[in-house]
Amino acid sequence: MNVEFVNPILVSILNVLSTMAKIDAKPGRPAVKQGDVSRGDVTGIIGMTGSKARGSIAISFPEPVILDIAKRMLNEEPAGVDATVTDLVGEIINMVSGGAKKLLGDQGYDFDMALPAVVSGKNHVVDHKSRGPKIILPFTVDTGVFFVEICFEN
Amino acid sequence: MNVEFVNPILVSILNVLSTMAKIDAKPGRPAVKQGDVSRGDVTGIIGMTGSKARGSIAISFPEPVILDIAKRMLNEEPAGVDATVTDLVGEIINMVSGGAKKLLGDQGYDFDMALPAVVSGKNHVVDHKSRGPKIILPFTVDTGVFFVEICFEN
Repeated sequence: MNVEFVNPILVSILNVLSTMAKIDAKPGRPAVKQGDVSRGDVTGIIGMTGSKARGSIAISFPEPVILDIAKRMLNEEPAGVDATVTDLVGEIINMVSGGAKKLLGDQGYDFDMALPAVVSGKNHVVDHKSRGPKIILPFTVDTGVFFVEICFEN
Repeated sequence: MNVEFVNPILVSILNVLSTMAKIDAKPGRPAVKQGDVSRGDVTGIIGMTGSKARGSIAISFPEPVILDIAKRMLNEEPAGVDATVTDLVGEIINMVSGGAKKLLGDQGYDFDMALPAVVSGKNHVVDHKSRGPKIILPFTVDTGVFFVEICFEN
Protein backbone atom coordinates (compact mmCIF):
# COMPACT_ATOMS: atom_id res chain seq x y z
CA MET A 1 0.00 0.00 0.00
CA ASN A 2 0.98 3.60 -0.58
CA VAL A 3 2.45 5.24 2.53
CA GLU A 4 1.33 8.60 1.16
CA PHE A 5 -2.15 7.60 2.31
CA VAL A 6 -1.23 7.41 5.99
CA ASN A 7 -0.71 11.09 6.78
CA PRO A 8 -3.96 12.43 5.27
CA ILE A 9 -5.89 9.85 7.28
CA LEU A 10 -3.94 10.64 10.46
CA VAL A 11 -4.53 14.38 10.00
CA SER A 12 -8.21 13.79 9.35
CA ILE A 13 -8.60 11.79 12.58
CA LEU A 14 -6.88 14.48 14.65
CA ASN A 15 -9.11 17.11 13.01
CA VAL A 16 -12.34 15.23 13.66
CA LEU A 17 -11.56 14.50 17.32
CA SER A 18 -10.26 17.98 17.99
CA THR A 19 -13.19 19.74 16.28
CA MET A 20 -16.03 17.49 17.36
CA ALA A 21 -14.93 16.28 20.79
CA LYS A 22 -12.23 18.75 21.86
CA ILE A 23 -9.84 15.85 22.29
CA ASP A 24 -6.15 15.98 21.45
CA ALA A 25 -5.20 12.47 20.45
CA LYS A 26 -1.49 11.64 20.38
CA PRO A 27 -0.61 9.51 17.37
CA GLY A 28 1.90 6.72 18.03
CA ARG A 29 4.24 5.05 15.61
CA PRO A 30 2.62 3.49 12.55
CA ALA A 31 3.36 -0.21 12.30
CA VAL A 32 2.69 -2.95 9.82
CA LYS A 33 -0.11 -5.00 11.28
CA GLN A 34 0.99 -8.44 12.43
CA GLY A 35 -1.85 -10.81 13.18
CA ASP A 36 -5.03 -9.54 14.72
CA VAL A 37 -3.80 -6.71 16.93
CA SER A 38 -6.77 -4.43 16.65
CA ARG A 39 -9.41 -5.50 19.12
CA GLY A 40 -11.84 -2.90 20.29
CA ASP A 41 -15.31 -3.02 21.72
CA VAL A 42 -16.71 -1.03 18.82
CA THR A 43 -15.21 -0.57 15.36
CA GLY A 44 -16.25 1.66 12.47
CA ILE A 45 -15.14 0.61 9.03
CA ILE A 46 -15.53 2.24 5.62
CA GLY A 47 -14.47 1.21 2.15
CA MET A 48 -12.99 3.69 -0.32
CA THR A 49 -12.76 2.96 -4.03
CA GLY A 50 -10.92 4.99 -6.62
CA SER A 51 -9.49 4.68 -10.08
CA LYS A 52 -5.92 4.43 -8.75
CA ALA A 53 -6.43 2.58 -5.45
CA ARG A 54 -9.01 0.98 -3.25
CA GLY A 55 -9.00 0.20 0.40
CA SER A 56 -10.60 0.58 3.76
CA ILE A 57 -10.12 2.46 6.99
CA ALA A 58 -11.20 1.11 10.38
CA ILE A 59 -11.24 2.79 13.78
CA SER A 60 -11.51 0.53 16.80
CA PHE A 61 -12.34 2.01 20.20
CA PRO A 62 -12.23 0.43 23.67
CA GLU A 63 -15.48 1.14 25.52
CA PRO A 64 -14.10 3.75 27.99
CA VAL A 65 -12.59 5.75 25.12
CA ILE A 66 -15.71 5.91 22.98
CA LEU A 67 -17.97 6.62 25.98
CA ASP A 68 -15.81 9.62 26.83
CA ILE A 69 -15.89 10.81 23.21
CA ALA A 70 -19.68 10.34 23.21
CA LYS A 71 -19.99 12.37 26.41
CA ARG A 72 -17.98 15.19 24.87
CA MET A 73 -19.85 15.17 21.56
CA LEU A 74 -23.37 14.60 22.89
CA ASN A 75 -23.16 16.23 26.33
CA GLU A 76 -24.38 13.07 27.99
CA GLU A 77 -22.58 9.83 28.69
CA PRO A 78 -24.28 6.69 27.37
CA ALA A 79 -24.36 3.75 29.83
CA GLY A 80 -22.67 1.45 27.33
CA VAL A 81 -22.18 0.74 23.64
CA ASP A 82 -25.78 1.28 22.57
CA ALA A 83 -27.35 2.45 19.29
CA THR A 84 -26.42 6.06 20.08
CA VAL A 85 -22.77 5.07 20.35
CA THR A 86 -22.72 2.92 17.21
CA ASP A 87 -24.39 5.78 15.31
CA LEU A 88 -21.68 8.09 16.60
CA VAL A 89 -18.91 5.72 15.51
CA GLY A 90 -20.53 5.58 12.05
CA GLU A 91 -20.51 9.38 11.93
CA ILE A 92 -16.89 9.54 13.10
CA ILE A 93 -15.64 7.14 10.43
CA ASN A 94 -17.70 9.02 7.83
CA MET A 95 -16.13 12.33 8.85
CA VAL A 96 -12.64 10.82 8.97
CA SER A 97 -12.93 9.30 5.49
CA GLY A 98 -14.57 12.47 4.17
CA GLY A 99 -11.65 14.54 5.44
CA ALA A 100 -9.13 12.03 4.13
CA LYS A 101 -10.87 11.96 0.74
CA LYS A 102 -10.45 15.71 0.48
CA LEU A 103 -6.75 15.63 1.44
CA LEU A 104 -6.08 12.66 -0.83
CA GLY A 105 -7.90 14.45 -3.66
CA ASP A 106 -5.38 17.30 -3.29
CA GLN A 107 -2.66 14.70 -3.88
CA GLY A 108 -4.37 13.47 -7.04
CA TYR A 109 -6.13 10.42 -5.60
CA ASP A 110 -9.88 10.45 -6.05
CA PHE A 111 -12.09 8.17 -4.03
CA ASP A 112 -15.73 7.29 -3.67
CA MET A 113 -16.73 6.22 -0.22
CA ALA A 114 -18.89 3.20 0.52
CA LEU A 115 -21.36 3.25 3.37
CA PRO A 116 -19.77 2.74 6.76
CA ALA A 117 -20.53 -0.25 8.95
CA VAL A 118 -20.09 -0.43 12.68
CA VAL A 119 -19.21 -3.64 14.48
CA SER A 120 -19.68 -4.08 18.20
CA GLY A 121 -19.15 -6.91 20.67
CA LYS A 122 -16.43 -7.75 23.18
CA ASN A 123 -13.23 -9.13 21.66
CA HIS A 124 -14.33 -8.90 18.07
CA VAL A 125 -11.56 -8.88 15.50
CA VAL A 126 -11.69 -7.00 12.20
CA ASP A 127 -9.50 -8.38 9.48
CA HIS A 128 -9.07 -6.42 6.25
CA LYS A 129 -8.76 -8.82 3.40
CA SER A 130 -6.21 -7.03 1.29
CA ARG A 131 -3.19 -8.30 -0.49
CA GLY A 132 -0.17 -6.58 0.98
CA PRO A 133 0.56 -4.96 4.32
CA LYS A 134 -1.87 -3.14 6.54
CA ILE A 135 -0.78 -0.18 8.59
CA ILE A 136 -1.91 0.14 12.18
CA LEU A 137 -1.76 3.47 13.98
CA PRO A 138 -2.27 3.76 17.75
CA PHE A 139 -3.68 6.98 19.21
CA THR A 140 -3.42 7.76 22.90
CA VAL A 141 -6.08 9.80 24.67
CA ASP A 142 -6.70 10.39 28.40
CA THR A 143 -9.02 7.41 28.65
CA GLY A 144 -6.93 4.84 26.77
CA VAL A 145 -5.61 3.87 23.37
CA PHE A 146 -7.59 3.40 20.20
CA PHE A 147 -6.40 2.00 16.90
CA VAL A 148 -6.77 2.93 13.28
CA GLU A 149 -6.14 0.40 10.55
CA ILE A 150 -5.38 1.53 7.04
CA CYS A 151 -5.40 -0.89 4.23
CA PHE A 152 -5.08 0.01 0.54
CA GLU A 153 -4.24 -1.85 -2.61
CA ASN A 154 -2.73 0.12 -5.41
CA MET B 1 -33.01 1.05 -1.16
CA ASN B 2 -33.79 -0.44 -4.53
CA VAL B 3 -35.42 -3.87 -4.25
CA GLU B 4 -34.06 -4.70 -7.71
CA PHE B 5 -30.72 -5.21 -5.97
CA VAL B 6 -31.93 -8.09 -3.82
CA ASN B 7 -32.35 -10.79 -6.45
CA PRO B 8 -28.94 -10.43 -8.13
CA ILE B 9 -27.30 -10.72 -4.73
CA LEU B 10 -29.45 -13.70 -3.76
CA VAL B 11 -28.66 -15.44 -7.06
CA SER B 12 -24.96 -14.74 -6.64
CA ILE B 13 -24.93 -16.30 -3.15
CA LEU B 14 -26.68 -19.43 -4.35
CA ASN B 15 -24.22 -19.66 -7.27
CA VAL B 16 -21.14 -19.27 -5.08
CA LEU B 17 -22.24 -21.85 -2.50
CA SER B 18 -23.42 -24.30 -5.11
CA THR B 19 -20.31 -24.00 -7.28
CA MET B 20 -17.66 -23.76 -4.59
CA ALA B 21 -19.08 -25.86 -1.76
CA LYS B 22 -21.74 -28.04 -3.42
CA ILE B 23 -24.30 -26.65 -0.97
CA ASP B 24 -27.89 -25.88 -1.86
CA ALA B 25 -28.92 -23.04 0.41
CA LYS B 26 -32.64 -22.36 0.75
CA PRO B 27 -33.37 -18.64 0.76
CA GLY B 28 -36.03 -17.51 3.22
CA ARG B 29 -38.26 -14.49 3.03
CA PRO B 30 -36.45 -11.13 2.75
CA ALA B 31 -37.36 -8.81 5.61
CA VAL B 32 -36.61 -5.26 6.55
CA LYS B 33 -34.04 -5.44 9.30
CA GLN B 34 -35.37 -4.42 12.70
CA GLY B 35 -32.70 -3.81 15.30
CA ASP B 36 -29.62 -5.94 15.38
CA VAL B 37 -30.88 -9.28 14.16
CA SER B 38 -27.80 -10.46 12.39
CA ARG B 39 -25.41 -12.01 14.87
CA GLY B 40 -22.99 -14.53 13.56
CA ASP B 41 -19.64 -15.79 14.74
CA VAL B 42 -17.92 -14.58 11.58
CA THR B 43 -19.11 -11.92 9.14
CA GLY B 44 -17.75 -10.83 5.78
CA ILE B 45 -18.61 -7.34 4.64
CA ILE B 46 -17.90 -5.48 1.43
CA GLY B 47 -18.71 -1.98 0.22
CA MET B 48 -19.89 -1.28 -3.32
CA THR B 49 -19.87 2.21 -4.81
CA GLY B 50 -21.41 3.28 -8.08
CA SER B 51 -22.57 6.40 -9.86
CA LYS B 52 -26.24 5.56 -9.20
CA ALA B 53 -26.07 3.87 -5.80
CA ARG B 54 -23.73 2.83 -3.03
CA GLY B 55 -24.07 0.27 -0.35
CA SER B 56 -22.73 -2.79 1.34
CA ILE B 57 -23.38 -6.50 1.56
CA ALA B 58 -22.63 -8.58 4.65
CA ILE B 59 -22.78 -12.33 5.17
CA SER B 60 -22.87 -13.56 8.75
CA PHE B 61 -22.23 -17.24 9.49
CA PRO B 62 -22.70 -19.22 12.70
CA GLU B 63 -19.58 -21.27 13.44
CA PRO B 64 -21.05 -24.72 12.53
CA VAL B 65 -22.22 -23.41 9.15
CA ILE B 66 -18.94 -21.85 8.09
CA LEU B 67 -16.91 -24.83 9.37
CA ASP B 68 -18.98 -27.13 7.17
CA ILE B 69 -18.56 -24.81 4.18
CA ALA B 70 -14.81 -24.71 4.88
CA LYS B 71 -14.67 -28.50 5.02
CA ARG B 72 -16.42 -28.73 1.67
CA MET B 73 -14.29 -26.07 -0.02
CA LEU B 74 -10.92 -26.99 1.48
CA ASN B 75 -11.34 -30.73 2.03
CA GLU B 76 -10.39 -30.39 5.68
CA GLU B 77 -12.38 -29.07 8.59
CA PRO B 78 -10.73 -26.29 10.61
CA ALA B 79 -10.97 -26.67 14.41
CA GLY B 80 -12.56 -23.24 14.77
CA VAL B 81 -12.78 -19.77 13.26
CA ASP B 82 -9.08 -19.35 12.52
CA ALA B 83 -7.22 -17.36 9.84
CA THR B 84 -8.04 -20.00 7.23
CA VAL B 85 -11.74 -19.52 7.90
CA THR B 86 -11.64 -15.72 7.92
CA ASP B 87 -9.70 -15.83 4.62
CA LEU B 88 -12.38 -18.07 3.23
CA VAL B 89 -15.17 -15.73 4.34
CA GLY B 90 -13.28 -12.87 2.66
CA GLU B 91 -13.13 -14.91 -0.54
CA ILE B 92 -16.81 -15.81 -0.33
CA ILE B 93 -17.96 -12.19 0.07
CA ASN B 94 -15.61 -11.20 -2.77
CA MET B 95 -17.11 -13.83 -5.06
CA VAL B 96 -20.66 -12.94 -4.03
CA SER B 97 -20.17 -9.24 -4.71
CA GLY B 98 -18.29 -9.99 -7.93
CA GLY B 99 -21.20 -12.09 -9.16
CA ALA B 100 -23.73 -9.48 -8.02
CA LYS B 101 -21.72 -6.72 -9.72
CA LYS B 102 -21.96 -8.61 -13.00
CA LEU B 103 -25.72 -9.20 -12.69
CA LEU B 104 -26.34 -5.61 -11.56
CA GLY B 105 -24.24 -4.37 -14.48
CA ASP B 106 -26.64 -6.19 -16.81
CA GLN B 107 -29.43 -4.12 -15.21
CA GLY B 108 -27.54 -0.88 -15.86
CA TYR B 109 -26.01 -0.42 -12.39
CA ASP B 110 -22.23 -0.22 -12.37
CA PHE B 111 -20.29 -0.69 -9.17
CA ASP B 112 -16.74 -0.64 -7.94
CA MET B 113 -16.06 -2.93 -5.04
CA ALA B 114 -14.10 -1.94 -1.97
CA LEU B 115 -11.86 -4.43 -0.20
CA PRO B 116 -13.73 -6.86 1.99
CA ALA B 117 -13.28 -7.02 5.74
CA VAL B 118 -14.03 -9.99 7.95
CA VAL B 119 -15.20 -9.63 11.53
CA SER B 120 -15.06 -12.47 14.01
CA GLY B 121 -15.92 -12.91 17.68
CA LYS B 122 -18.87 -14.40 19.55
CA ASN B 123 -22.00 -12.22 19.57
CA HIS B 124 -20.59 -9.43 17.48
CA VAL B 125 -23.14 -7.19 15.79
CA VAL B 126 -22.65 -5.53 12.42
CA ASP B 127 -24.68 -2.42 11.86
CA HIS B 128 -24.74 -0.85 8.39
CA LYS B 129 -24.94 2.88 8.76
CA SER B 130 -27.24 3.70 5.89
CA ARG B 131 -30.16 5.99 5.69
CA GLY B 132 -33.20 3.95 4.83
CA PRO B 133 -34.13 0.32 5.32
CA LYS B 134 -31.80 -2.64 5.26
CA ILE B 135 -32.92 -5.94 3.87
CA ILE B 136 -32.08 -9.13 5.70
CA LEU B 137 -32.21 -12.49 3.95
CA PRO B 138 -31.99 -15.78 5.85
CA PHE B 139 -30.55 -18.85 4.13
CA THR B 140 -31.08 -22.34 5.52
CA VAL B 141 -28.49 -25.05 5.03
CA ASP B 142 -28.14 -28.48 6.69
CA THR B 143 -25.99 -27.12 9.49
CA GLY B 144 -28.04 -24.03 10.38
CA VAL B 145 -29.11 -20.62 9.18
CA PHE B 146 -26.90 -17.82 7.96
CA PHE B 147 -27.90 -14.27 7.17
CA VAL B 148 -27.19 -11.82 4.40
CA GLU B 149 -27.71 -8.12 4.92
CA ILE B 150 -28.15 -5.83 1.95
CA CYS B 151 -28.01 -2.15 2.39
CA PHE B 152 -27.99 0.39 -0.44
CA GLU B 153 -28.65 4.09 -0.73
CA ASN B 154 -29.80 5.32 -4.08
